[in-house]
Amino acid sequence: MEQRLSLVTLVVDDVARSRDFYVRGLGWAPEFDGGDEVLMIRVGAHTMLSLWGRAHAGAELGAIAQFDRNQIPPFVLAHNVHTEEEVDEVLRTATQAGSGWVQSAVRRAWGGYSGYFADPDGFRWEVAVNPTELGESLVP
Amino acid sequence: MEQRLSLVTLVVDDVARSRDFYVRGLGWAPEFDGGDEVLMIRVGAHTMLSLWGRAHAGAELGAIAQFDRNQIPPFVLAHNVHTEEEVDEVLRTATQAGSGWVQSAVRRAWGGYSGYFADPDGFRWEVAVNPTELGESLVP
Repeated sequence: MEQRLSLVTLVVDDVARSRDFYVRGLGWAPEFDGGDEVLMIRVGAHTMLSLWGRAHAGAELGAIAQFDRNQIPPFVLAHNVHTEEEVDEVLRTATQAGSGWVQSAVRRAWGGYSGYFADPDGFRWEVAVNPTELGESLVP
Repeated sequence: MEQRLSLVTLVVDDVARSRDFYVRGLGWAPEFDGGDEVLMIRVGAHTMLSLWGRAHAGAELGAIAQFDRNQIPPFVLAHNVHTEEEVDEVLRTATQAGSGWVQSAVRRAWGGYSGYFADPDGFRWEVAVNPTELGESLVP
């Protein structure tokens, strides 16, 4: 089995609301727009982010868990950049896009600088500089 | 803001159990092994899967939600391949690795062939052939 992640699918309450945040707010270009069912955005050469409406996802997958919106979901997506200035700029973009939860970046014990924002469904994105060899390999 | 996903972090109950599943079971090679804190596995040229122990994640992020283990988590990772035979083979590998929940692949209304497995924390992976231009662009 190869080591490959092809898509990350987030089950969202309202695809239109997600489109507004990711496309209008963050300025990302959709690659496949399936109306109120699904929206796909390329986030790597061979990797897509898929925003899948809850009713449609439930029809294929079965009952889908909600998580407590007062807590942090047990998974985080990360967007790495080259400089601390870019981290702050991305967090400002997320704030302007209407993110209801932004944590300003701070220097971390592991050597990086990172903050967080939430999308309209509460999914968390980390925005980071990771100045290690591994970290730098993640930013083309 | 660039369209970039650098890492997917899964908050796991026991990093050793996750290592056993992903490294021994699926045969994936760790790129950074941080003991009981974190395990990182490369899943794309510029993309990592990070398995982060719940106690450590909670120290940085705050209270982390649990989801109902009888339901499907509201996000899914996908591993795309070229052929239906490979889909079946990966699902067999996941079964042999000890996945407690495997859904055999079936042909889908969208034209593909896909099944699912769960990792030890209940995170779902879809294993798919997607014979569209978009789908084929996800498999190098």
